[in-house]
Amino acid sequence: MPSFEANGRTYPLPPNPIAVICLDGCADEYLSTAIAQGKMPRLAAMARDGWRGIVRGALPSFTNVNNTCIVTGVAPRVHGICGNFFLNPESGQEVMMNGPEFRRCGTLLTAAADAGRKVAFITAKEKLRTVLGDGVVERGGIVFSSEKVDEAKKETHGIDDAMSIIGKPRPEIYSGDASIYVLEAGAALAEQGVADFLYLSTTDFMQHKFGPEAPEILDFHARIDAAIGRLLDAGCTVALTADHGMNAKNDSEGNPKVIFVESLLKENFGDALRVICPITDPYVVHHGALGSLVMVHLEDPSQRAAIAEFLFNQDGITEVLTREQAVDKLELAPDRIGDLVVLSGRDVVVGKSAEHHDLTVLHGGLRSHGGRYEELVPLVISKPLTPALKRMAEGDPRNFDVFYFICHV
Amino acid sequence: MPSFEANGRTYPLPPNPIAVICLDGCADEYLSTAIAQGKMPRLAAMARDGWRGIVRGALPSFTNVNNTCIVTGVAPRVHGICGNFFLNPESGQEVMMNGPEFRRCGTLLTAAADAGRKVAFITAKEKLRTVLGDGVVERGGIVFSSEKVDEAKKETHGIDDAMSIIGKPRPEIYSGDASIYVLEAGAALAEQGVADFLYLSTTDFMQHKFGPEAPEILDFHARIDAAIGRLLDAGCTVALTADHGMNAKNDSEGNPKVIFVESLLKENFGDALRVICPITDPYVVHHGALGSLVMVHLEDPSQRAAIAEFLFNQDGITEVLTREQAVDKLELAPDRIGDLVVLSGRDVVVGKSAEHHDLTVLHGGLRSHGGRYEELVPLVISKPLTPALKRMAEGDPRNFDVFYFICHV
Repeated sequence: MPSFEANGRTYPLPPNPIAVICLDGCADEYLSTAIAQGKMPRLAAMARDGWRGIVRGALPSFTNVNNTCIVTGVAPRVHGICGNFFLNPESGQEVMMNGPEFRRCGTLLTAAADAGRKVAFITAKEKLRTVLGDGVVERGGIVFSSEKVDEAKKETHGIDDAMSIIGKPRPEIYSGDASIYVLEAGAALAEQGVADFLYLSTTDFMQHKFGPEAPEILDFHARIDAAIGRLLDAGCTVALTADHGMNAKNDSEGNPKVIFVESLLKENFGDALRVICPITDPYVVHHGALGSLVMVHLEDPSQRAAIAEFLFNQDGITEVLTREQAVDKLELAPDRIGDLVVLSGRDVVVGKSAEHHDLTVLHGGLRSHGGRYEELVPLVISKPLTPALKRMAEGDPRNFDVFYFICHV
Repeated sequence: MPSFEANGRTYPLPPNPIAVICLDGCADEYLSTAIAQGKMPRLAAMARDGWRGIVRGALPSFTNVNNTCIVTGVAPRVHGICGNFFLNPESGQEVMMNGPEFRRCGTLLTAAADAGRKVAFITAKEKLRTVLGDGVVERGGIVFSSEKVDEAKKETHGIDDAMSIIGKPRPEIYSGDASIYVLEAGAALAEQGVADFLYLSTTDFMQHKFGPEAPEILDFHARIDAAIGRLLDAGCTVALTADHGMNAKNDSEGNPKVIFVESLLKENFGDALRVICPITDPYVVHHGALGSLVMVHLEDPSQRAAIAEFLFNQDGITEVLTREQAVDKLELAPDRIGDLVVLSGRDVVVGKSAEHHDLTVLHGGLRSHGGRYEELVPLVISKPLTPALKRMAEGDPRNFDVFYFICHV
């Protein structure tokens, strides 16, 4: 069987079109509730006739980190994307990793295109297109975001007039439509035979806003399901996973439960330190840059053990790892993380300081991610697993094995 | 509304009979797969018309620990049951906590009986009856295990001739029948109006043996569902949760992935230490006494930091907490745990030494629990949540809130 290689793994080229969906922020409960309410009949049929299980994402459980894992098939230690932001150790500057130059290996999207596949990579957020889409268009593929679908051009995006092919105008980025559009666009390309190797990555605007039972998200999932149905009807093998889960992070009054780590540390250990919130991105309305993992950078390394112990003693902090431990246990790249990596609990977020985070952007409480309790995510595949894949699924399968799974079923 | 108090919490007395089911070892995937395969129509209807979500159990994610949490409504730090075994700091002996004298607070079963409820507590394993059933029979309730249902007598178990009431002979303890029997017995008592406040706790023999897709466990879940249907049809409000999840713990060849912590430490730090496997119980066929959490006791406390660091550096070890940290972060009782508490990963178990564990009892690989990756479990309730319960469910709800939930819906 023809195959391609990417980052040390071999992927057979499947005989029919494939579509991998990364449903941003899709904690498994969203699927269980939507299925229970009869909103996802096509996904329910996938679970019945194929496979549904739980896979482990990469930490920090953030979007860029895990999307990079998925399109490279490897952990952050290898690809280097350990958050949206990092503190450049050479310049001392906080750097947004918004271009492919920060990634330390190629993607399986370009490898599949090199092997002759008609690759399409469609995202909701423009940032993901720029970080992960490099090289695809040059190889005849298509890459665009629903956020800027109106800017898509043949020479830069591999497609002209995308909106008329899809049959819909550009959606608003702060909406469920931005995600539905991604799947509908993929379905249109598959139906028209323009693409046969699709990666469709949505945005978690809805999941940040709504829990699994909200009527709004049930309606959203019904529309997601209809688009999945179109992909299946177009002959695609479909796999759905997530970059991270999502949890409410509020006290009983509905106010965000936040530990402002930089303020707390400066009060107790002086000013020679800096906290980076690697969830920070241009889309702050989602989460106010508050997630369940931050990096602590110290000017004086001799303070490290004392600060680690102090932090771990705080209520709501669940793990504090040194840089070396985080490389080992969280599979992170040593030069892209802090001297300490700090994780918080299921209902707690960590931030920098009260001034740094604008909580007024949050309406109806905070739902967020980034920590251990958003690490486990669903994987649903429309075909049954082979015996070899079953053995793999019985171990510690990862969300970034999704292309491996779908190419082997 | 009439209510009762137990361990600082108030429980309204619900107007109709209630049945709480602790489905031992029921990782959420079991339910998702069984529902997808159409094997649990009654549970699917509960999820549709009531509520299904994820709750956090207590660590160690073991049976006695979590069953004690559920019947007391409080964490192990309060009730004191932190495993099946502990090292008595006074005697230096390893003690099996197989009697109620080890528990440090009363149960809500006796409190409900005092408030006039007809309580029935039915377990699969006899050990749970002895540890948690005290005081119920004296208050007019019924307590027996399917393992020893033939020994049930009015004066000691609150019921004579239990097998004829249930209509079935005693099941084999190493079987799915031992668990089905628990639910069918509860249904029979509810149907006959003999009990209206039921706690039904099964055994995880099947879950240790089979993953979610095995035909054997799908059949098992179909029978569980039928028994749930009987409880619902008898007018019970039903809540189903689990004591812990379950994961395969094998390498790619299907052999258990074990770290023998005592051997490893003695090689490197000398003999002045002891490892306790608190999963150890008389039912070794389930797991060979291998789980994902062990306690390390040190004769020389000055070694503690070095040993903690050494252990955390081992592949497969995910967390190492000092006694004080474990009291704080895992809500454990300081005198019932080790100097260090050691947790392992999703597919890894920790043990004492190769000699101590008989792996020949394991057929078809090891599935086990005890660690962080078996901490999150399902909660399904047959009635919708009130607004106040919804807010609670949006925080960090626990499996040991199950009686609180069911008494408030």
